[in-house]
Amino acid sequence: MYTGKDRLQAALMTDLYQLTMMAGYYMHHREAEATFELFIRSLPTSRAYLVAAGLEQAVEFLLHLEFDDESVAFLRRLPALAHLPGDFFDYLSRFRFQGDLWGVPEGTLVFANEPILQVRAPLPQAQLVETFLLSLIHYQTLVATKASRVVRAAAGRGVVDFGTRRAHGPEAGVLAARAGFIGGCIGTSNVSAARQFGIPAYGTAAHSWTLAFDSEREAFEKYHAVFPDSTVVVVDTFDTMEGVRNAVRLGRKLKGVRLDSGNLLDLSREARRILDQAGLGATKILASGDLDEYKVQRLVEGGAPIDLFGVGTEMVTSRDEPALAAVYKLVEWQGPKGVVRRAKFSEGKETYPGRKQVWRSAGPGGVYAGDEIALAEEGPKPGATPLLIPILVGGTLCAPLSSPTEARDRACLEVERLPARYRRLVAADAYPVVWSNDLRRRFEEMRKKSLLPPQGELCDTNA
Amino acid sequence: MYTGKDRLQAALMTDLYQLTMMAGYYMHHREAEATFELFIRSLPTSRAYLVAAGLEQAVEFLLHLEFDDESVAFLRRLPALAHLPGDFFDYLSRFRFQGDLWGVPEGTLVFANEPILQVRAPLPQAQLVETFLLSLIHYQTLVATKASRVVRAAAGRGVVDFGTRRAHGPEAGVLAARAGFIGGCIGTSNVSAARQFGIPAYGTAAHSWTLAFDSEREAFEKYHAVFPDSTVVVVDTFDTMEGVRNAVRLGRKLKGVRLDSGNLLDLSREARRILDQAGLGATKILASGDLDEYKVQRLVEGGAPIDLFGVGTEMVTSRDEPALAAVYKLVEWQGPKGVVRRAKFSEGKETYPGRKQVWRSAGPGGVYAGDEIALAEEGPKPGATPLLIPILVGGTLCAPLSSPTEARDRACLEVERLPARYRRLVAADAYPVVWSNDLRRRFEEMRKKSLLPPQGELCDTNA
Repeated sequence: MYTGKDRLQAALMTDLYQLTMMAGYYMHHREAEATFELFIRSLPTSRAYLVAAGLEQAVEFLLHLEFDDESVAFLRRLPALAHLPGDFFDYLSRFRFQGDLWGVPEGTLVFANEPILQVRAPLPQAQLVETFLLSLIHYQTLVATKASRVVRAAAGRGVVDFGTRRAHGPEAGVLAARAGFIGGCIGTSNVSAARQFGIPAYGTAAHSWTLAFDSEREAFEKYHAVFPDSTVVVVDTFDTMEGVRNAVRLGRKLKGVRLDSGNLLDLSREARRILDQAGLGATKILASGDLDEYKVQRLVEGGAPIDLFGVGTEMVTSRDEPALAAVYKLVEWQGPKGVVRRAKFSEGKETYPGRKQVWRSAGPGGVYAGDEIALAEEGPKPGATPLLIPILVGGTLCAPLSSPTEARDRACLEVERLPARYRRLVAADAYPVVWSNDLRRRFEEMRKKSLLPPQGELCDTNA
Repeated sequence: MYTGKDRLQAALMTDLYQLTMMAGYYMHHREAEATFELFIRSLPTSRAYLVAAGLEQAVEFLLHLEFDDESVAFLRRLPALAHLPGDFFDYLSRFRFQGDLWGVPEGTLVFANEPILQVRAPLPQAQLVETFLLSLIHYQTLVATKASRVVRAAAGRGVVDFGTRRAHGPEAGVLAARAGFIGGCIGTSNVSAARQFGIPAYGTAAHSWTLAFDSEREAFEKYHAVFPDSTVVVVDTFDTMEGVRNAVRLGRKLKGVRLDSGNLLDLSREARRILDQAGLGATKILASGDLDEYKVQRLVEGGAPIDLFGVGTEMVTSRDEPALAAVYKLVEWQGPKGVVRRAKFSEGKETYPGRKQVWRSAGPGGVYAGDEIALAEEGPKPGATPLLIPILVGGTLCAPLSSPTEARDRACLEVERLPARYRRLVAADAYPVVWSNDLRRRFEEMRKKSLLPPQGELCDTNA
């Protein structure tokens, strides 16, 4: 994680070209204020909405961004930069992020092309932070979104993140636990995430515990002796129903049994029957093992008496869609004669020009009706709520950030407000997001101009 | 990253159940030596072999594993553990990993069921480290394997990791750069990975650089002025061929042009023609943009004059297979009457009993002929080489680890030694891996016994 010594070296967790461009801007005294927007270009068909996450880590990064002496010394020796004059490296040593950051609060639902973050800072500052911000926001948004799908499929039964071991490295496990919680999980098996973010920690016992004793019965008894009030045992090491019967022998304080393989629908029914017959109506049934939103949905729809789902690999790697089209695009900069807006017209990779705001409208009962992406300068849209709020001004925090719990509550509420047809797990309708008339007009004018030679005028000087 | 303060808290980057089981073992004075093996249960059809990676980070973790005061204080308050006696927490404060670690050197090719790591330590120690070791080895092996495929598709042209922004968090970006290098990449855009692991750093310029000036021509000139000897510009911001012509104006020192969209086969040919006509035969062509091994292969087979491929998202997320069936299984423990071996018989989830060794045989010219997985006690197999070597003995490093460059050389050589039919990108034949006769016999005997009631005898007491 980017704390401690690594916090100081987080500045190096970037692509080399961010540093070469920074040097270029510095050498040409090009410190003009620029606005970059971070957004997801398009949603995969299996994602009807996104749950924005990662803002807290993005802010921490910007607040503490600096090059420590060791990092600067390394850059001085780097072949790509070694020829640059010493004052560039002095500039790096003094470097701090002094720009503005706008963002949508964590847990907010967002859609394609809606800025999740907006960075307004002198060009070199805004450029340097691209890689790290993308990395943080992309991954947590990816997992919070997947988690939200699994949690909805669970229809009120709890979902716990069990994915740390298959996340893409230890840090990803911690970030996934956080993002999964924002997406609606009730907790995580990840102890570090529990400590750092105050997320409830869940745990049972593994097959290895059972295998480390002479019999399953002995293993269960030994576990119960140490954890009399929180015994949850995994019952499928040998024969699942025999495992349930061995668990039942522990008596009324047995908190739960975990099923980790086989036909979970049939096994959970049979396990429930055995537990109930033994008078253990309060004992919970947990299920785990390669679960995703579709499997959870089938179990719930089939009436499986499962109280809690442990979901791992599928959620923390967002296995069916392990990456989103997250980009960070220059949309305007302050030229000597005024604001220069920037657009791109490549099919499927359009970038609309200028600093924006997203306005969300709601109908009766607070039900979301649609979004409008407009130029920030267009000002308020009657009856609609702006999604982007100021977070940092001049490099300083200007608004309290949501806690993970607040973000989780927000995501939960927002999903409720989304009409059912826009949040179906499969074949959802596209939620209506439109560009404002002003923005469309401006984009079309710029596109027309771009078709005339010579090139280079994909800007819209607003003198 | 798990350095600095986080190194001390890496102990918490685990699943809660590792700590509850640890407490259980401690409370029952169950410190028997146990052996766990980390392996990949099966390979996806799109992966004919795996490139083992991550050992260096695994060793760092084990060497420095400890619970700092803050971590212990947190665990004392954790509801699941708060009832435990104080001496358990004192035990955590004193905790160090004192076991043995065997492993295959990084860059070694491995196949399904072949142990990549083998941990032999008192039960609580061997149990605690499961989550972190899986996380490290799984992810780096995943990426090194994918990188090896891309590199082979590139058939001698360079491949550079450009994936940091879409990796699953900043740390994953650094680990992916390292694993990609081991898999055969020539470098990375990730500056932190360059610093930490001595991997060559590569960088060009982004579209935003071009958009931050009044014209593409001006943008290129301004970049060249700062980086006269290493100018690589991205030429597809507006019109790609116009971009190449603008780049040509920079003259003979132009190092390269980067194509990032469109039909890379046609565009690279046309770009090459323009460059050659201008006498810039030494100027390289780089290509990037959602590349994977299949796209690279088509470009190479089509004769695209591309010198270097920048590969990102597809490689660092291993997008088509973002997770492998990595597991960490108890295979034996030291009982009071002798070694107790453990096996599992569930279909598709078999675990073979006992501490193992993998023997690789080679035919004429060093060409690999097949592997045999045997019990360690079977001893040397004539003419075959053992893959697992001792790394830690009693918690202390006993062999120098391979550097990333050595691991990369090893992977490259091993892929060469693998007959072509076992390393095709598509529809490769399965490389022959067999269980030794002893191991098969023992497994079958245990399976037969397991079918008899009562359960609990899936062990093979070797008094």
